[in-house]
Amino acid sequence: MRFISETSSDGVREQLFTLDEVPGALWTPEGAAGARPLILMGHGGGRHKKDPDVVAWARRFVVECGFAVAAVDVPGHGDRPKDERYDKIAIENQARVAAGEEPAPLIAGFQALVARQTVPEWRAALTALQRLEHVGVGPVGYWGVSLGCGLGVPFVAAEPRVRAAVLGLGGALAAAEAAARITVPVEFLLQWDDERVPRAQGLALFDALASVEKTLHANPGKHGEIPEFETDSTLRFFERHLGQGRRLDTP
Amino acid sequence: MRFISETSSDGVREQLFTLDEVPGALWTPEGAAGARPLILMGHGGGRHKKDPDVVAWARRFVVECGFAVAAVDVPGHGDRPKDERYDKIAIENQARVAAGEEPAPLIAGFQALVARQTVPEWRAALTALQRLEHVGVGPVGYWGVSLGCGLGVPFVAAEPRVRAAVLGLGGALAAAEAAARITVPVEFLLQWDDERVPRAQGLALFDALASVEKTLHANPGKHGEIPEFETDSTLRFFERHLGQGRRLDTP
Repeated sequence: MRFISETSSDGVREQLFTLDEVPGALWTPEGAAGARPLILMGHGGGRHKKDPDVVAWARRFVVECGFAVAAVDVPGHGDRPKDERYDKIAIENQARVAAGEEPAPLIAGFQALVARQTVPEWRAALTALQRLEHVGVGPVGYWGVSLGCGLGVPFVAAEPRVRAAVLGLGGALAAAEAAARITVPVEFLLQWDDERVPRAQGLALFDALASVEKTLHANPGKHGEIPEFETDSTLRFFERHLGQGRRLDTP
Repeated sequence: MRFISETSSDGVREQLFTLDEVPGALWTPEGAAGARPLILMGHGGGRHKKDPDVVAWARRFVVECGFAVAAVDVPGHGDRPKDERYDKIAIENQARVAAGEEPAPLIAGFQALVARQTVPEWRAALTALQRLEHVGVGPVGYWGVSLGCGLGVPFVAAEPRVRAAVLGLGGALAAAEAAARITVPVEFLLQWDDERVPRAQGLALFDALASVEKTLHANPGKHGEIPEFETDSTLRFFERHLGQGRRLDTP
């Protein structure tokens, strides 16, 4: 793990790093020392580790919960080089959709392929991050919607260190088999009028999760329109499952 | 409105009353004076105004939010006399289900019939309660699941004083038409393995609500097994829509 830059603002320390050529960002409370919960965040399709939404959520986890948060670029995204193999498939898929094929199975197949690379990358990132003194070996959570769900489901299924996950905006085609191996608590976000993921596919992915505690939060609106109050809910969810106390839940 | 008894414990004042022969209970903070939000709670089938679940939720609304809370007995329930007309239909319905008919449409028809009586009763209760000095004319919320949803949907649709509602464990057959007239924010609770309300019926009722802000919370478990953490969520929902501040949402 090689650190590239470090900045601080409003109580949050941001460190950019690379690990085996995977670029990442780590956010921790300024002056943090010792072990704490760590949230790994998976960004959306066409976005990157410092997507404004990712950064906004990360800062709240750091400031309000005292957690460490990290995100790494998915292959072909952010500061990673273009990947000709993935590009070729993406172009082929676009042509197949233009020719009338259903996009959902194509996206599902593509995400499953990329997950074969990202699952080991993210597991390696966890190991490296938890060796840092200001992160340490605390409970781990995962947050990812859309592409972050498609890649997150196989990751959470494979990684026993993850104790709780926020997932959503994804469908069963991509991930039902891996979802059936997830047993940790999950908060699942579904947009009722999602133009990219058919409603039945989202409900089926929630249904496929083997977790005893799983909670579906569905709200009106399109793919990108998760309401602001769900951020509050996510903070409480991770506090409940990863935090020491119940600061936000109790009066 | 005639008051029958009054007790106080742990900061909550409980007053039992009758209004035009409808028995009710009112819970307010001890020593409360002046207007405050009022939550009307609809109890479940075979239960009554002082059902332990109703009382437990009511006490939390009073203690943690400073709200007034009231519940009245549904016809044929609690301290109300048996109603031969309803009893006759209930017995007929039981026989029809025993003979192989689907229960959901029968329950729907029965609830629609009872709602014709409870909607005006509950509206009269609101008016009388808001005349009390320690309740006053503040924002009104409604909480009701199961029978409390079947009767609550037509009530919320008919009553412009209600500004936010928690509903759930109910199906579209009973209430889709009235649901399409509801425009206030709704938090809708659905049990994923509900043995009484088919999942598709519950999802269809959520879908039918015309509210711009509506949020579906679905959890594994049977009809009566709403998880404890949903109580916290409900408190925050009513705080957000009826309360003065955002005490529970902000750190």
